[in-house]
Amino acid sequence: MSGTLLPYTLNRPIGIFDSGVGGLTVLKELRRKLPHRDFVYLGDTARVPYGRKPAAMVAEFAYGITEFLRGMGVEGVVIACNTASASALPELAGHFSIPIWGVIEPGVEAAAKLTRTGRVGVIGTKGTIASGAYQRRLEQRGLTVWARACPMLVHIVEEGLATSPECDLLLRHYLDGRGGIDTLILGCTHYPLLHDAIQRVVGDSVTLVDSAEALAQAVNGNLDASVGADPASGAPGRIVHFVTGDPLAFGHTAAVIGEVAGEVVPLPVTELIRLQQRGADLQVCAGPPGSAPGAGRAPAATTPSHPTAPAPPPSCAPDR
Amino acid sequence: MSGTLLPYTLNRPIGIFDSGVGGLTVLKELRRKLPHRDFVYLGDTARVPYGRKPAAMVAEFAYGITEFLRGMGVEGVVIACNTASASALPELAGHFSIPIWGVIEPGVEAAAKLTRTGRVGVIGTKGTIASGAYQRRLEQRGLTVWARACPMLVHIVEEGLATSPECDLLLRHYLDGRGGIDTLILGCTHYPLLHDAIQRVVGDSVTLVDSAEALAQAVNGNLDASVGADPASGAPGRIVHFVTGDPLAFGHTAAVIGEVAGEVVPLPVTELIRLQQRGADLQVCAGPPGSAPGAGRAPAATTPSHPTAPAPPPSCAPDR
Repeated sequence: MSGTLLPYTLNRPIGIFDSGVGGLTVLKELRRKLPHRDFVYLGDTARVPYGRKPAAMVAEFAYGITEFLRGMGVEGVVIACNTASASALPELAGHFSIPIWGVIEPGVEAAAKLTRTGRVGVIGTKGTIASGAYQRRLEQRGLTVWARACPMLVHIVEEGLATSPECDLLLRHYLDGRGGIDTLILGCTHYPLLHDAIQRVVGDSVTLVDSAEALAQAVNGNLDASVGADPASGAPGRIVHFVTGDPLAFGHTAAVIGEVAGEVVPLPVTELIRLQQRGADLQVCAGPPGSAPGAGRAPAATTPSHPTAPAPPPSCAPDR
Repeated sequence: MSGTLLPYTLNRPIGIFDSGVGGLTVLKELRRKLPHRDFVYLGDTARVPYGRKPAAMVAEFAYGITEFLRGMGVEGVVIACNTASASALPELAGHFSIPIWGVIEPGVEAAAKLTRTGRVGVIGTKGTIASGAYQRRLEQRGLTVWARACPMLVHIVEEGLATSPECDLLLRHYLDGRGGIDTLILGCTHYPLLHDAIQRVVGDSVTLVDSAEALAQAVNGNLDASVGADPASGAPGRIVHFVTGDPLAFGHTAAVIGEVAGEVVPLPVTELIRLQQRGADLQVCAGPPGSAPGAGRAPAATTPSHPTAPAPPPSCAPDR
């Protein structure tokens, strides 16, 4: 861990990460439920967007980020990014000994409770939809699924075009063919910003599920609300945002979501690449069956994950 | 300059920068004309896109980048980004003693030569169009101008959607109302990738102007082609790409433009912020009239700029 990060002494913070600013919608929900807790937010703006990148690349990014957050002493990590949740959650949960929450299972649960006809839709990035993560879980519950990748919607939000003609054009295009769904999961943390526009296109008979809200509920139920600033004092928890891109640019893009509360600190992406590299080094070594950490080696876990014991240390030295 | 950059000993390289991968279209054109020259490309992928950011912010970015490239010993700097050319070129050209070429003037010149009816259109990012940089220059030549900001088209290219229904939908939307133009400037380095789709929408009676090509022509006419690898040896020039974001992610996004030829080196965005800061420090000091370097103080220059003498050194120490 770089010495420059040492001043950020937080009280058992909760880690949250996203490819960029989208996860701020999740942070907002979490703060509403846990106002006295400290948070560390990591926005990987040097590599945004994740949506079109190969799943293996996104999984590597997620590994390095989780390793970084773990080094910050977080109590658990919230993957506030659907693409990363779809690509990396089972592997991360199998590798790390702290709880890791993803955005997909809470969204699926909420949709399953809400639907009356059993016909549920889900929209997300290319990566999220291609992974089939939502579809599989919904189908396992006996639901009929309509899924559609909407690659341009993240950009609509980040360009501040949520109420533009471009937005309406694209939404009508993407949501055409949704058939008789009565529930639609907004499977990307940016999409709640398009809530009203989407509701206009699908009509009032379709209920929209905001994954950020569902996730915050799930995390809240698994954490000790008494940790952090004394609730009686009314003092809010502290928030530090690490961003791999430019802090100024982060603030500018984040303005479409709302104000960034807390400090914004630049984190060289090379620091995360170094941590990823460590994961890759571990990957190539052959440990005892089931013990090797990293991508593709750990058993799949559900969300949230609470492994009963920490992963064993790597059984060989990096081979370079 | 960081010690890690020292191994990049190039022979009077030409510097090129862009907010991301778009400038690779300009690099491609330049290499076609100057195959034996060395190039340093800087892709500011940690802060992409520039198109919606305030002009003053983009000008600061451009200052830090030009300072970095100057430190690499470049013979001149090509701003292969319409937004940055529109926001920063006159100030940079007034401040630095090396030639700085922007993409706007060459595009305007090419369009003025091509139009028969005198009705010219230009499309670009929000920043480029809002600056009025193209419109002013075209109108100064007595031409009638139609201009339109197309904020989603960069994303269409970077998402690999150049031949998608989304692309056609958005192009028809943006190009509606173009009236009787007979020439259309593609005022963003990403747009040549949409050349065929745009041509289909506007029809064959409208000539498209590729600014990358026009800029390469202008730079070529101002440089000594004999510098670099010996043309007789047939050896191509060397290229180093510095990227502020993740090199892997750069390569992935760049694939929509074509192969990245040459080495890709991560450059912490904090290094550029430090160089910008130096510019900001200089800004607050009061030098003799006309001598203070930085934004808003130097006289506007045309493209390309060849100041007859280097700017005088700052006349005061930074105030912190």
